[in-house]
Amino acid sequence: MSEFNLINQYFSRHRLDDGLGVGDDCAIITPANHKQLVICTDTLIAGRHFVHETAAHAIGYKAVAVNLSDLAAMGATPHSILLALSLPSTHNTPQWLSEFSAGIYDACNLCNVKLIGGDTTKSDVLTITITAQGFVTHGLAITRAGAKIGDVVCISGAVGTASFALHQILEDLYGDGYAKTPTALDELPDDLKTALQYPTPQVVLGQKLIGYAHSMIDISDGLAQDLGHILSQSGVGARLDLHKIPLHPLINALPNPQKWHYALNGGDDYELCFTLSKEKLAQFKAQNPTLLIYEIGEIVATQGLQLLHQNRPINLPTEGWQHF
Amino acid sequence: MSEFNLINQYFSRHRLDDGLGVGDDCAIITPANHKQLVICTDTLIAGRHFVHETAAHAIGYKAVAVNLSDLAAMGATPHSILLALSLPSTHNTPQWLSEFSAGIYDACNLCNVKLIGGDTTKSDVLTITITAQGFVTHGLAITRAGAKIGDVVCISGAVGTASFALHQILEDLYGDGYAKTPTALDELPDDLKTALQYPTPQVVLGQKLIGYAHSMIDISDGLAQDLGHILSQSGVGARLDLHKIPLHPLINALPNPQKWHYALNGGDDYELCFTLSKEKLAQFKAQNPTLLIYEIGEIVATQGLQLLHQNRPINLPTEGWQHF
Repeated sequence: MSEFNLINQYFSRHRLDDGLGVGDDCAIITPANHKQLVICTDTLIAGRHFVHETAAHAIGYKAVAVNLSDLAAMGATPHSILLALSLPSTHNTPQWLSEFSAGIYDACNLCNVKLIGGDTTKSDVLTITITAQGFVTHGLAITRAGAKIGDVVCISGAVGTASFALHQILEDLYGDGYAKTPTALDELPDDLKTALQYPTPQVVLGQKLIGYAHSMIDISDGLAQDLGHILSQSGVGARLDLHKIPLHPLINALPNPQKWHYALNGGDDYELCFTLSKEKLAQFKAQNPTLLIYEIGEIVATQGLQLLHQNRPINLPTEGWQHF
Repeated sequence: MSEFNLINQYFSRHRLDDGLGVGDDCAIITPANHKQLVICTDTLIAGRHFVHETAAHAIGYKAVAVNLSDLAAMGATPHSILLALSLPSTHNTPQWLSEFSAGIYDACNLCNVKLIGGDTTKSDVLTITITAQGFVTHGLAITRAGAKIGDVVCISGAVGTASFALHQILEDLYGDGYAKTPTALDELPDDLKTALQYPTPQVVLGQKLIGYAHSMIDISDGLAQDLGHILSQSGVGARLDLHKIPLHPLINALPNPQKWHYALNGGDDYELCFTLSKEKLAQFKAQNPTLLIYEIGEIVATQGLQLLHQNRPINLPTEGWQHF
């Protein structure tokens, strides 16, 4: 199928109210007054960011979701995406493309986001790069650099689940021996499959935290590594209570070293990690009683990440996802 | 090298005046009043969009330039880019990365553009996706859809040169027998090498055409195919005088069928093709005497592209670059 037919057939559903969508050299976005544009880009590669047997729908969904999660981590309201799709000829089929585009649009619809442009190319490796745009009121974006001593460290949900699920389907992925007999992707329990394939970008929580959180990041590479970015960019340290980190029951049932490995180093969950003062946290919880927040530690003056087990410091390896 | 070291060392030169650059979940851009954001994304893949022996600097430069060309085609003023880099381990070396990033920054500096964010991942295939952002005064962007009957069809420079250069270094790329004995990339004449590797995005001309041009596109896939997008989206046709299309002397010296093949179907030159009324053209030329413009035809009511040779219609195959 030619590029133009492919775009027309599968990727041309959305038109922006204010004019152009897919089909010109560029897309055009009209910012509202006093808004800043928030923009990010993330690539997913077959065999690297998802296993080759992943369904086209799940690939499309997740490629969008991980980008919306980056917008959520700034407190931005998502607006639109661009799709750069590099497609092997084996995937250039009506079935694969219709399922993939349905996944893209399902993730878009979840957050009221429109696909407004992109590029399609042929490649030997299925590679999807999404660029996502959102808006935030001028000066109010929440960055990684604002954590203050005394802040409570919070996360929005369980971590390590996606990484644990991935280990179930891979034979000894990291040579750590956790899963010697791999489970087929289709045979994973539903909640593990969802954690791995259909993460929910926390865009509502992210926006509501504006005016409350001093710093925020989404957990894509592992809690220790991502919180580490907040700490280094804010010039502070943190103390985490290991038993306060919310975990999936299957992970909670593991021996401590394995459990903590997933809690600290398991990436790909796309929960938010943020810090705010005790007073703001109390206000936020009072005003948003339905939003789940887990308090897992505290920002301290001593640089680095201290881990507490039964109120005593413990040394654990923290590494996180290595991109290379 | 880890992702974070790699970004810090090679891709962190720019900071935006108004705050964030590389190093948070997203980049933040502050739009000026009454401006619309113009945004596009384009992917270059090793072995597909450039030959494997291409120097890292040229790859970085061109990845940025082709995107700035898309902004130029809307009349936008370029602002910033995001870089999504998928890197084989063979390319993750200080030498390759420093040359590649120098190419990125050289193209950025040419148009006063900043690299403000991105993503780096490991892949078996070198794949570069750039997203470029620019601004245009509200409602003034030049699209593909505005061509009017009677408009003059113009282009900004010679076409077919990059495609001709590529044929010199490839052995019978399209099975058309043009280049049986390939020339090494390094041994190409300088002007052909520049056409292939260092196209100049026409951003100044693009911006100056606001208020003059009714429609515009950049020629990336070949004049016939790209002008065809203007015609179909404007609901008009065009008549082109083949002898008016500016060509490199080496192409001009070819037999007619080969010459016209490059003129009509040779992509990758990134000149602008635009249409405007005779009156506006005269005004524009009077006010911008140093900007080169070539008048190559006319917009007509009859749909499709008519080609004239010595004032008589001639049928030629027009195909352009096939993305798949």
